[in-house]
Amino acid sequence: VLGLVSYPPLFNEPSIPADAKQRARAILDGCKGGSVGSYSDSAGIEVIRRHAAEYIQRRDGGIPADWQNIILSAGASGGIKVLMALLRCPINGKKPGVMIPIPQYPLYSATIAEFDMEQIGYYLDEANKWGLDIAELERSLKEARKTSAPRILVVINPGNPTGQVLSRSNIEDIIKFAQRERLVLFADEVYQDNVYENGSQFHSFKKVMMEMGEPYSKMELCSFMSCSKGYMGECGIRGGYAEIVNLCPDVRTMLLKCISAQLCPTTAGQAVLDCVVNPPRKGEPSYEQFEKEKASVLESLRERAELVARTFNSIEGFSCNPVQGAMYAFPQIRLPAKALEAAKKDGKPADTFYAFQLLEETGICIVPGSGFGQRPGTYHFRTTILPQPEKLKEMLGLFKSFHEKFLQKYK
Amino acid sequence: VLGLVSYPPLFNEPSIPADAKQRARAILDGCKGGSVGSYSDSAGIEVIRRHAAEYIQRRDGGIPADWQNIILSAGASGGIKVLMALLRCPINGKKPGVMIPIPQYPLYSATIAEFDMEQIGYYLDEANKWGLDIAELERSLKEARKTSAPRILVVINPGNPTGQVLSRSNIEDIIKFAQRERLVLFADEVYQDNVYENGSQFHSFKKVMMEMGEPYSKMELCSFMSCSKGYMGECGIRGGYAEIVNLCPDVRTMLLKCISAQLCPTTAGQAVLDCVVNPPRKGEPSYEQFEKEKASVLESLRERAELVARTFNSIEGFSCNPVQGAMYAFPQIRLPAKALEAAKKDGKPADTFYAFQLLEETGICIVPGSGFGQRPGTYHFRTTILPQPEKLKEMLGLFKSFHEKFLQKYK
Repeated sequence: VLGLVSYPPLFNEPSIPADAKQRARAILDGCKGGSVGSYSDSAGIEVIRRHAAEYIQRRDGGIPADWQNIILSAGASGGIKVLMALLRCPINGKKPGVMIPIPQYPLYSATIAEFDMEQIGYYLDEANKWGLDIAELERSLKEARKTSAPRILVVINPGNPTGQVLSRSNIEDIIKFAQRERLVLFADEVYQDNVYENGSQFHSFKKVMMEMGEPYSKMELCSFMSCSKGYMGECGIRGGYAEIVNLCPDVRTMLLKCISAQLCPTTAGQAVLDCVVNPPRKGEPSYEQFEKEKASVLESLRERAELVARTFNSIEGFSCNPVQGAMYAFPQIRLPAKALEAAKKDGKPADTFYAFQLLEETGICIVPGSGFGQRPGTYHFRTTILPQPEKLKEMLGLFKSFHEKFLQKYK
Repeated sequence: VLGLVSYPPLFNEPSIPADAKQRARAILDGCKGGSVGSYSDSAGIEVIRRHAAEYIQRRDGGIPADWQNIILSAGASGGIKVLMALLRCPINGKKPGVMIPIPQYPLYSATIAEFDMEQIGYYLDEANKWGLDIAELERSLKEARKTSAPRILVVINPGNPTGQVLSRSNIEDIIKFAQRERLVLFADEVYQDNVYENGSQFHSFKKVMMEMGEPYSKMELCSFMSCSKGYMGECGIRGGYAEIVNLCPDVRTMLLKCISAQLCPTTAGQAVLDCVVNPPRKGEPSYEQFEKEKASVLESLRERAELVARTFNSIEGFSCNPVQGAMYAFPQIRLPAKALEAAKKDGKPADTFYAFQLLEETGICIVPGSGFGQRPGTYHFRTTILPQPEKLKEMLGLFKSFHEKFLQKYK
């Protein structure tokens, strides 16, 4: 940006649709000096924050979203970290506690450890499609209150690694619980486009909370979104946003101050996020191609989600909840007693022991359940549904025959 | 990246030089699935880390650089934060101390505060072109040892906001001091291309340290570079690297673990950094244009650096060191006693009071010295040399006449 700036020559390229050019121009016009090479505001480029607010408002059936409540970030992770940092101070000498699902996405446990906060795990209900049981929330909170000052309730919906999509009534109960217990809600909603199961539907915490009216509509909520998931999967570019609802204005001022030391999230990531929150509309030249590609990616993911769960359930000793959403299956495996012994001897958790053998014998890499947390004495693993269908079928075939041999070996 | 990947159509565009395409292809080949849409390794794309190591080795006259010591980051800031985080644990109940220059770039004070470390300021020697005086380092360290456990010595060279370029013998003395006092050196060298003054030359801490031989060549050093400065100025994209020399292998393992929770630095920023560390070479189609543009940007900055310092020195009550490097002037202003009184009455530091009046009357925005730190009782401000020459001349003219009126007003 140290030289003169003008629209790049691509704006004359006839093969790029006019609406795509118009979008690019709107972004560049929102950049200082008309270039993504400039620093943006620390909270992001205004026009993209406005598009994100409009996207949320459309998604939530017209419930207002204020663009000044949108903070653009390096993926969702960047937003989650900066908001958790804001709430990390000890309270009356007690560590602030963060309630997270078990199993959970390890960003949370890592960030909690980094910030010296207290991790409060609540178990998801595997017998109920990994749903969220309020009695379990209450148990875990009560337990945690003995040693820490709980501040945040993290909910991942659709779930990672568990793939559940929360029902509306479940979300209402969670909101009531958080309100009763004065917890700030962190809604990790990065998989909001990834809902596959018939009858399942994504409900944003913001929408449900607002529709419940006061006192719920006044609760503090942070919701996170990313361009790394959905039908986009542009994860390396690092685009994301946090919507911050009902945050005390003083705290918001402090938040803006905190993020300013890091200057700004990458403008390229912001621009990619704009593509997510400002997609082609009906009547625009790109609309049909966009809709077709989006539908085809999501339909293929739906098929893979179904294929993965069905195949795992056909394997002896496996049980897998339906992959209602997100990008993962998290099946439970019952391992023979001899395998448990061998793992113990080898100094590894049994699921890790199993994962290493699988990797060495087939080249298939799964993540053992112990990396995400699980009820003691149970064993799981996470696998993605992302490989292309042919590869996935081949992989599942190899997996199945490995498992048969494994059972034979440790019979 | 959820669909099929192939080289984008731009690879067929005849107006793009063949070597630029070859570079883009090398980067894409280094990305998973051949797309910047994929996550990279947390430390960055291997081929770009290798290019960065080769760049450092060329810069340092052949002294080896190991690509595994290169961590790509979101600008230099991302690297600085993650390495400072690694050293933030209290030592024997004492806060770890970070020695930073005063004046300093506020990223340091902000990060030190965020990590609850102890800020140890050492004053730069304004009377000696903002050089670094070892006796002052010793004074400040001795003082700081009473309350904290000093761990890190930060040196910004070329200086921000002060514009000095350290001499080789000054760097040798700093290295000896850090070795004697067992401090980890943080060399903020993001302005390594921005050296203007005749006779001034950039010497990297790595090169000097290695040429000094043992024990100095075994010291722990972190050096930071960015694509936000130099002749590039691509700051919004967030590309940077840290070179980490002689770090204990266990600590390096921990570092890689720490950064993995954040997944990866933006691939687009990594790609832009590649352009910096892997520039066109003699004989390649882009070489001449690249060299011409680079030389013209740097020559223009050199002229502006000279113009800014000369103009400020022509204003009554101003004294400005030569802008030997970087992108800023940091002149001292002597304010009349009546202005100091008026500022006090207004509840503002006198330099802030002055800056607000300047802003309101002329639209010129400067950053008061109190934002960077300065010796008590002195007043400074930072201004960049970045505006285009014509605008800069106009700005300096307005500034000068404002100052004359200001002196008149508070005579």
